[in-house]
Amino acid sequence: MDRQKGIEVLFNPRSIAVIGASSTKGKLGNDVMRNLIDSGYEGRIYPINPKGGEILGQKTFRSVKDIASDIDVAVIVIPAKFVLPAVKECGEKGVKALVIITAGFKEIGHEGQESEKKLVELAEKYGMVIQGPNCLGIINTHAPYNASFSAGTPKKGTIAFASQSGALMTGILDWSLMEKIGFSKFVSLGNKAHLDEADFIDAFGNDPDSTFILLYIESVVDGKKFMDACRRVVPHKPIFVVKSGVSEAGARAASSHTGSLAGSDTAYDVAFKQSGVSRAVDMAALFDVASVYDDMNLPAGNRVAIVTNAGGPGILTTDACEASGLDIAQLSNDTIEHLKSNLPAAAAVYNPIDALGTAQPEDYALCVEAALRDENVDSVLVLLTPQAMTKETETARVLVESREKYPDKPLIAVFMGGNSMVYPRIVLTEGKIPVFDFPERAVHALAELYKYTLHRDSLKDEAIPKFNPNKKKVQEVIDGVRRDGRRVLLGSEAHEIAEAYGIRVARIRLATSSEEAKQHAEELGYPVVLKIASPDIVHKSDVGGIRVGLTKPEEVEEAFLQILDSAKQHMPKAIVYGVDVQEMAEKGKELIIGCSRDVQFGPLIMFGAGGIFVNYLKDISFRLAPMTRTDAEELINETKMGMLLKGVRGEPPSDIAAIEDTILRISQMVTDFEEIVELDINPAFAYVSGQGISAVDVKITIGG
Amino acid sequence: MDRQKGIEVLFNPRSIAVIGASSTKGKLGNDVMRNLIDSGYEGRIYPINPKGGEILGQKTFRSVKDIASDIDVAVIVIPAKFVLPAVKECGEKGVKALVIITAGFKEIGHEGQESEKKLVELAEKYGMVIQGPNCLGIINTHAPYNASFSAGTPKKGTIAFASQSGALMTGILDWSLMEKIGFSKFVSLGNKAHLDEADFIDAFGNDPDSTFILLYIESVVDGKKFMDACRRVVPHKPIFVVKSGVSEAGARAASSHTGSLAGSDTAYDVAFKQSGVSRAVDMAALFDVASVYDDMNLPAGNRVAIVTNAGGPGILTTDACEASGLDIAQLSNDTIEHLKSNLPAAAAVYNPIDALGTAQPEDYALCVEAALRDENVDSVLVLLTPQAMTKETETARVLVESREKYPDKPLIAVFMGGNSMVYPRIVLTEGKIPVFDFPERAVHALAELYKYTLHRDSLKDEAIPKFNPNKKKVQEVIDGVRRDGRRVLLGSEAHEIAEAYGIRVARIRLATSSEEAKQHAEELGYPVVLKIASPDIVHKSDVGGIRVGLTKPEEVEEAFLQILDSAKQHMPKAIVYGVDVQEMAEKGKELIIGCSRDVQFGPLIMFGAGGIFVNYLKDISFRLAPMTRTDAEELINETKMGMLLKGVRGEPPSDIAAIEDTILRISQMVTDFEEIVELDINPAFAYVSGQGISAVDVKITIGG
Repeated sequence: MDRQKGIEVLFNPRSIAVIGASSTKGKLGNDVMRNLIDSGYEGRIYPINPKGGEILGQKTFRSVKDIASDIDVAVIVIPAKFVLPAVKECGEKGVKALVIITAGFKEIGHEGQESEKKLVELAEKYGMVIQGPNCLGIINTHAPYNASFSAGTPKKGTIAFASQSGALMTGILDWSLMEKIGFSKFVSLGNKAHLDEADFIDAFGNDPDSTFILLYIESVVDGKKFMDACRRVVPHKPIFVVKSGVSEAGARAASSHTGSLAGSDTAYDVAFKQSGVSRAVDMAALFDVASVYDDMNLPAGNRVAIVTNAGGPGILTTDACEASGLDIAQLSNDTIEHLKSNLPAAAAVYNPIDALGTAQPEDYALCVEAALRDENVDSVLVLLTPQAMTKETETARVLVESREKYPDKPLIAVFMGGNSMVYPRIVLTEGKIPVFDFPERAVHALAELYKYTLHRDSLKDEAIPKFNPNKKKVQEVIDGVRRDGRRVLLGSEAHEIAEAYGIRVARIRLATSSEEAKQHAEELGYPVVLKIASPDIVHKSDVGGIRVGLTKPEEVEEAFLQILDSAKQHMPKAIVYGVDVQEMAEKGKELIIGCSRDVQFGPLIMFGAGGIFVNYLKDISFRLAPMTRTDAEELINETKMGMLLKGVRGEPPSDIAAIEDTILRISQMVTDFEEIVELDINPAFAYVSGQGISAVDVKITIGG
Repeated sequence: MDRQKGIEVLFNPRSIAVIGASSTKGKLGNDVMRNLIDSGYEGRIYPINPKGGEILGQKTFRSVKDIASDIDVAVIVIPAKFVLPAVKECGEKGVKALVIITAGFKEIGHEGQESEKKLVELAEKYGMVIQGPNCLGIINTHAPYNASFSAGTPKKGTIAFASQSGALMTGILDWSLMEKIGFSKFVSLGNKAHLDEADFIDAFGNDPDSTFILLYIESVVDGKKFMDACRRVVPHKPIFVVKSGVSEAGARAASSHTGSLAGSDTAYDVAFKQSGVSRAVDMAALFDVASVYDDMNLPAGNRVAIVTNAGGPGILTTDACEASGLDIAQLSNDTIEHLKSNLPAAAAVYNPIDALGTAQPEDYALCVEAALRDENVDSVLVLLTPQAMTKETETARVLVESREKYPDKPLIAVFMGGNSMVYPRIVLTEGKIPVFDFPERAVHALAELYKYTLHRDSLKDEAIPKFNPNKKKVQEVIDGVRRDGRRVLLGSEAHEIAEAYGIRVARIRLATSSEEAKQHAEELGYPVVLKIASPDIVHKSDVGGIRVGLTKPEEVEEAFLQILDSAKQHMPKAIVYGVDVQEMAEKGKELIIGCSRDVQFGPLIMFGAGGIFVNYLKDISFRLAPMTRTDAEELINETKMGMLLKGVRGEPPSDIAAIEDTILRISQMVTDFEEIVELDINPAFAYVSGQGISAVDVKITIGG
């Protein structure tokens, strides 16, 4: 069965079997049964237990096969060793979706991994979908139904939440009940043996009850599938994610600059960016955004009005806005006049609007409504501190009325204080006004929503550019290297591949004798560069393996011999193929363009300031291939080099179009040839507009 | 009277007069009286009100002069126009300290500013100290006494808090009562007419009841005084600050690179750093640190053990630790063995220690105590999620016992959840274990404390280096420029000043004719550089005002004429003094060293990567002068250039000692000569170790 259809059944089953249902309190099979019944599930519930009898008032069956009617979903909470036969029975019975709560699979090692594979085989064979194993279960507050062993059912709402950690989920659920945050779907992903985060992202995207998608993940199963799902959903619904495990992967061995500069988490960061997923800095921030989100009511721009009864919090909020990319709105003259004629003379009628410590509820209504009406304002932040004359609850009430009168723009409250703000906060929350205790968190949440709208509105259907490279040539070179038992390409080989993809390279020839070197030099034209040709020598200049600016045959001859001597001295065990003779490219702005490969997301392209200090300057940025032209543009613009290339301090602009072109050609090259695991062009010289670029040093490593 | 003695009285008065005391509810004079009485103040209270009678059971006087006994403190809550006479009476009566709550001074404009000046004059005349005006008052929970119009008195504790915003303070107070955060002193700074933040920092430093200092400020009155006070206190007590108003100052006009690159908030950031003050990112973070702080119990290092009952939160915490500069401790073999033999086989006995979802209170005790005992562990973070078998309250209780058994290391709890965690959190807080709802905030707070200990332990008593410059020469040059009616120095003048401070500069001579230019060139030695000499032309190369590499007299003559022509063409109105002839310095690593002046903190020194792209690369850092050698070292090391100067990729190291020396000489120069408002040396060439540096282009602007 199609996975999405399977999840549809999983979200809204007409009947549920609980395999391992129990009447013993404290057992998971009992928790699941109770949750199912307590959640008000209206379909049929079939407890399955070999002992038979009744469980919580429901007739119990020995096997799903004993049930005459169709079963949509089976929840499995029996010990691991019994799971496979039960799943087989479900398949034979025609159950459409399984929620396997039972642990003891992949997470316990090799044996568990084998069982998990068999689970998936059974699912495929019988056309079932499987959630889990090793999960908390699933909750749909709209069905309603709770097929999990959670302690309680979340409040009904529009947030769809999927989590790779069941325990975190129990914490979030408990916390959400106190904070009055509502969910539509609550999905524990477990080991993701069959259904993974991407499947649920698509399902949440199609689910009319869900308007906002939150994820907690530690990894994704399939990078491309994940990005594709996100790209389908993000135009309609925001996806916010906490991705943990940043520090886990640790250092990876990498011989290229690109490989060593891409941190273990870089690919995730880039994948989120390229698929429009917003990454929250921490769990609190994730739910801050959720609490502020209202799908009818996203900010149309970044102009914020601040209404306050005290200067200090107004300044804090102003700082936070500017730090988060939000602007302090310039109020219209009408608004300013209106405020002037209705507020005390000492009040500040510009933004932030300070209605003074004496501000009464009606003053707040006046200011907030004026701000909500103002065409120059996209969102309103209303701050309240508990001063002598402050009426906290009454103010909350009038704000709810103002919100109802002007429902179109985000209105967020910051009621600073403790006990005196408890009740006012409830009034606000029930009146659909999100409320915070400190201004910074409110501002960050609003800014995140604004960034989502920016991204959503900038989406365009852009094709991946296609070039016509000489793939046959590339394959020949790679085959030759393989035959030679190498993984690192010689300079001449790497340049050939680059050339086959239409990248302008400094011409290069391998010389195995000084005579040959001189001959190459004559043909290429003086001056030339000589470089040691050895797959074992990565940093050529460190071993005296490079000589530049050679202008006559005698110099070439001498350099040839010196380079070989020096290499022998520094790295006696290196296998040396000879010396590359290369035409000396005219100097330009030094760039690096490279590629490394991420396990989950594939080719990761790097661009930045090149040269020998690339690891120190770290003026670099990344994108995943394949890339659109916009991706290439953004990649360049994210670096300081991108700014310098535009031409500053009177310099002419560099040939940015040619740089983009080169990046896109490399993007296609590493997509076409998965064998290319690392690539560095460093430096590439960029010339003034119209003059193109020149790849001076190309390094390529192929997979084993 | 000495300000500190005045504040001592203010903190612990034997008698208090309330000028403007009232029996009418809702009046500030009534609030203050009630707070004084309710706070349990044991000294004498004298209500002052021209109407006489009794207020809240206390005999009322018409004037302080009618009181026979001494009065330590007078709190003033009468309308602004009556304040000055009342202050005078207090002076005459011999009152030692005033808390002026009344508003309507500096904050309302010119007239109020004048009254405020008179307040200070009276304070000086009569030897009183004044807190305020326009403030909430003062609270000392240890005296105890509450001389403010706050709604309630904070819990007794050891945090001293001073705030420039009274309203923010009321919010914090209310919030702290709910969060059970205790304070020792609670000071509303108001307009800071007399006593300012620096005075209170010193007083908090001397106060035995205060162990931790929190500030909310929007500005400081006197930068040097503030830094001096912080430097005295930080070795004994941490100071954490929220400084707002970052976005306020906006763009300042600046003609130098240094001036334009120093943001409006840079000087504050640097001042905090140089005086050991920790800047919190927001209000929530400020109190997070406060809640974690225990003066007996600072982390001895950065090695953290994590104990959890779920993997996900453990990973989140690990990520947060590594992002905050905390290490995941490598547990000792003893600990690992102990855990192995006492926990289920599936538990993770390395760090994070995962005691599994089934973990019982005794399992938590076992793990936490093992971690607290482990010599490889400096702090312990204990995470709990509410799973099926979790006993939240019981676990909290055993943790409190563990904490009592092993009181020496920080132990912080993260109990994730909502209603089920309310009571456990109370148990923890009362048992002196700080508790959070999400791990990231706990980690950040711990990391901030660790950073404080690092700073405190690195403090050394280091003298400001003193050089013997030719100050007379500098003064002559400056006088000459002044006589000329200029503010921008000619290149030759700026170089003279640098030279007078022992800075090696490329020699330079002003030529007013091509003949003179050739003569200078002969004397300096070829090749030479010619540069337009005009105080009106800041970016010389943009107007064709620079010619380099001139090797013979004819070239000099031609360049001289071309430069004058080009300048005339591009900037016909610029006053041109001639053309500077300069020896051509050998190229080295390009640096910028500069200085701008901050209104509050004085000379702000900048160091970084120089050249024409300095504004784009922004590889710069800042320190306030005067600087120690350590300051100079750190300044250099904070930049990427600092790393390159050490010699990477086979390059020899640059002459870092000479760079430090130059920075320190400039630090002294701008300290000696306040007239120098802006200075740029860009570029200075740094040569290899032992070869020094050469200041190629020096620009100086003096104050009007």
